[in-house]
Amino acid sequence: MNRYISEANHSKNLYEQVYDYINHRIDRGEWQMHDKLPSIRDLARAMNVHRLTVFKAYQLLKQKQRVYVKDKSGYFVSPTYRDEVPMNDAHISTSIQRNYLSDIQQIPATYQFSQAIIDPNLLPNHYFSEYVKNVFDLYPKVLGSYSPLQGDEELRGALTEYFLQTENLYVSADEVLITTGAQQAIDFVAEVLIKPRDTVFLERPTYSAAIDIFRQKEARIIPIDIHPYGYDLDRVEYLMKKHKPRLFYINPTFHNPTGYTLPKEQRKMLVDLAERYRCVLVEDDPFHDIFFDHKPPHPLFSYDTSGYVIYIRSFSKYISPGLRIASVCCRPWLMKQLLIAKSLSDNGTPLLNQKIFLHYFLSSRMQNHLEKLRIALNVRKGLMEEALSTTDWKWESPNGGFNLWVNVPEHIHVDTLFKQSIEQSVSFVPGEYFDPERTMKSWIRLSYSFANEKDIKEGIRRLRAVIIS
Amino acid sequence: MNRYISEANHSKNLYEQVYDYINHRIDRGEWQMHDKLPSIRDLARAMNVHRLTVFKAYQLLKQKQRVYVKDKSGYFVSPTYRDEVPMNDAHISTSIQRNYLSDIQQIPATYQFSQAIIDPNLLPNHYFSEYVKNVFDLYPKVLGSYSPLQGDEELRGALTEYFLQTENLYVSADEVLITTGAQQAIDFVAEVLIKPRDTVFLERPTYSAAIDIFRQKEARIIPIDIHPYGYDLDRVEYLMKKHKPRLFYINPTFHNPTGYTLPKEQRKMLVDLAERYRCVLVEDDPFHDIFFDHKPPHPLFSYDTSGYVIYIRSFSKYISPGLRIASVCCRPWLMKQLLIAKSLSDNGTPLLNQKIFLHYFLSSRMQNHLEKLRIALNVRKGLMEEALSTTDWKWESPNGGFNLWVNVPEHIHVDTLFKQSIEQSVSFVPGEYFDPERTMKSWIRLSYSFANEKDIKEGIRRLRAVIIS
Repeated sequence: MNRYISEANHSKNLYEQVYDYINHRIDRGEWQMHDKLPSIRDLARAMNVHRLTVFKAYQLLKQKQRVYVKDKSGYFVSPTYRDEVPMNDAHISTSIQRNYLSDIQQIPATYQFSQAIIDPNLLPNHYFSEYVKNVFDLYPKVLGSYSPLQGDEELRGALTEYFLQTENLYVSADEVLITTGAQQAIDFVAEVLIKPRDTVFLERPTYSAAIDIFRQKEARIIPIDIHPYGYDLDRVEYLMKKHKPRLFYINPTFHNPTGYTLPKEQRKMLVDLAERYRCVLVEDDPFHDIFFDHKPPHPLFSYDTSGYVIYIRSFSKYISPGLRIASVCCRPWLMKQLLIAKSLSDNGTPLLNQKIFLHYFLSSRMQNHLEKLRIALNVRKGLMEEALSTTDWKWESPNGGFNLWVNVPEHIHVDTLFKQSIEQSVSFVPGEYFDPERTMKSWIRLSYSFANEKDIKEGIRRLRAVIIS
Repeated sequence: MNRYISEANHSKNLYEQVYDYINHRIDRGEWQMHDKLPSIRDLARAMNVHRLTVFKAYQLLKQKQRVYVKDKSGYFVSPTYRDEVPMNDAHISTSIQRNYLSDIQQIPATYQFSQAIIDPNLLPNHYFSEYVKNVFDLYPKVLGSYSPLQGDEELRGALTEYFLQTENLYVSADEVLITTGAQQAIDFVAEVLIKPRDTVFLERPTYSAAIDIFRQKEARIIPIDIHPYGYDLDRVEYLMKKHKPRLFYINPTFHNPTGYTLPKEQRKMLVDLAERYRCVLVEDDPFHDIFFDHKPPHPLFSYDTSGYVIYIRSFSKYISPGLRIASVCCRPWLMKQLLIAKSLSDNGTPLLNQKIFLHYFLSSRMQNHLEKLRIALNVRKGLMEEALSTTDWKWESPNGGFNLWVNVPEHIHVDTLFKQSIEQSVSFVPGEYFDPERTMKSWIRLSYSFANEKDIKEGIRRLRAVIIS
C-alpha cells in the first residue's frame, strides 16, 4: 500500500491518504459491501500510523457514506451506488437499441470465425512505424492540430486521384468526407436522411450494425432479398413504387455476409431505379480491394449522374483497423448535411490517423502488399472450403471478401450448434443476426480472414465434430 | 496531361483515357458548364491522338450527359448535378441543425482570437515522435487491431490511477469510456438521455456545440445564468422543481466562455440538488489542468455518491488536438447505455491514438511540460488584458482556461465590430453564439490560447483601432 501513501499528493493530510487507501481497496472490491473493516488498532499498526489518523479516516468514510457503524461492533462497508439503479434507468434503456453482433464477438474463442476482420499478422506491421516516423518528419505539428471538419485536404485530394485512376470515378475533393470508420458514415447518413417512420430498404441478409443503426432511428425497415445473381429488380421496382423508401442501404461488392457481387448490368439499372423513385442508394464498399481472381465492377456511384448515390469506401477492414479511416463520397447538396452531422458528432477525424493513412495506404509498398494479402486470403478461403467439403453444407464460393455464407441443413439447430461450438472454443455468427427479420435460421457466417491456416483447419475440424456428435 | 494518359489503368482504351481526362478537367472546373470544348481536330492535335479517338470520347461524354451538342457548332459542357438540388433536399435541411460556431472559426484571420485551442507551438512537438516510435516498439500490431469498444484497458487503468491521485476521484476502469474528443461524449449523453421535448438545463452562456447538440435532439432548453461566484442555487432548485430537467450540462471549471469556476461549496450543494430532483449533471471538464495560480476544486463527480454525475474529462484541447482523446466517467447503469451509443456510432476510438496518448500524456516529461504551458498561457492572458486595459471593456480575470469573456459598452454593436475586425484580419466570437437564447449582445469571447504574444498585441491594437474609428 506504500504507493498510495508515498505517491499521494503531498498537500493531503495523512488521514486523507489513509482514507484514499481504504476507499481504493473498497473500489477494487478487496473489501466488499457489509464486510467488516479492520479495527482501528490493527489498521494503525499495519499502516504504521497513529490510531487517531485511522480514526479520522474512518470518520471521513462514515461521513461520505462509504462505511457504516454497527452497534459498536465496528465499521462496515456500505452498499454502494453500484447496486442502485436510479429509476430513470428504465427510461434510458428504452431510448437506445442494443447492438447484438458486438455481444457475439466479445465471446472469447481460440478459433475465431466470427470476426470479419483481417488477421493482424497479414498486415505489414514491421514497416508501419517507418511511415509514422515519416509522418512526424513531414508534419512536426500533426498532434497539435485539429483536422479540417471535412478531413485532411491532402488526403481527400489523393483519394479523388485514386478513385479516378482505379474506379473511373469522378469526385472532387469537396465531395469527399473523411470519417472514423464506415460505421460512423452510415450513422451520419441515417441521422441526415431518416426520421422516425421513414422507410428504409435493407438487403436481406445485411451488415448487422446497419440494422441496429436504422432501428435506432426508428425507420420502417423493408428487407430486399439478395441472390448470387443480384436482386429481383422487378420486385425492387414494385417495392420502391409501393413504399417510396428514403434510402436503400446496399453492399454490392463482396457483400457481407454472403460474398455476392452485384453484376455490372444490375448496377446501372438499380441507379436508374433510384433516380426514378427518388430513393438514395447508400453504397457501402469496404471489401472492394479484396478480390481473388478478377477486379469487381466499378461502384454504382460511378454510374450516378444525378446525385442519388452515396458512396462509403472504408479501408479499416483490411488496411488499418487501428487507424479507422473511411471516406464518404456524395454530391454537394448531401455533403452539406453530412458535414453538419460530422461537426455535431466529433468535429473531425483525428489528423494523425489521416496523415499516416495517406502516406501508408497510397505508398507503392502498400499497394504491392495488397497483392500478397489477396493471395493469403484466397488460400485461407480455399482451406476453409476444403475443410467443409465433407459436410452437406452449401455455400457460393465468393470471389472476394472475408466470409463464407453457409446454408446448413434444416435438421441442424443453429443456436445449439453455436453453443456447442463455443464450448469447443470455435466462434461464428448465426445468420439471423444479419437478417432484419431474424428469420434466417439455417444460415451461418464463417469468416476466414482472422484465423490462420492452422486454426482454420482445426476450428472447422472441431465444428464438424460438433455436428456429428 | 500526360499523367492522365500514362498513369491510367492500361485495361482502358485510349478513347476512355481521353474521356477520363476531359471529365477530370470539367470536374476541376477548368471547363465550366456551357463552355465550348476544343474542336475534335484541335484536341486530337493537342493530345497527339487520332481524331477518331477524340470523337469516340466526345460521343461517350455526350452519352453520359456530361456534354451536349449545339446545332453543329460543337460540344458544350452540360449543366451538372452540382446545380441540381433534388427535392428531398428541403426535407433534409430541416432534419439537422446548423453548427454555427464552426462557421465563424472557418473565417480566415491572421489574429485568431476565435479559436479556444492551444497554439501548436506551445506543444512539445519535437519529442512527440519519440513517443510514437516507442508505441510501435511496444505494440507492433497496434495498427492492425481494433480498440475494445470501451477503450484500451491499459489507458483506462492508467486514468483511474491518475484521477485517484490528482482528483481524489474514485472510478474503476469499467466506469471509464474513451471517446474521440469531448464532443462525441456529449453527443452520446444526449443520444442516451434525451428524447424530443425532454427538458435540458444549459448554462448561459455555454459551449456552443452543446447548444447545437441538444437542439438537434429537440430538447426543451432552459438557460441557467452563471456568475463569477457561481449559480443562484435557490433559483436552480426552483427551476428543477418546476421543470424536472433530465440533465444539466455544466462546465464548472474555467468555464467556456467565461472562465468562471464554481466554488467548492456550491459543487457539493449542486450534486445534492441533482440527486434530490433526479437531474443528471453532465460535467464537462476540458480545462482542468490549465490553472494559473492555484489548482481548481475537485470535480463535482468526486462528490457524487448515487450516480447522478457524468464526468467528461477531455485532453484534446491542450495536449493533443491531433489525437482527440477524451474520457467519460459514470456509473455502470449509465455506462451500459453509453457503450451501446459508442458501438452504434464508431465502435471504438482508434487504438493507436489511445496508446500514443497513454505513453505521452502520462509521461513525467509531459507533466513537466504542462507546468510550462500554464506559465506561457498566463503570460498571454496578461498581455491581452494589458492591451485591453485602455478600453472601457469589462471582464473577470480568469484563473485558468483559454478565454476572456468581455462585456463591451452598449453603444458598440458587436455584429458591426465583428465585420470590421475581420476586415482587419482579427477574429473573435460574438457572445450570442454561446447563449441558448442568442440575446447576449454586448459580450464577446477573446481567446488568448492560440495567437502568440506578438499577434496578441497587434491583434488587440487593431481591435482597439476599430472601436475608435
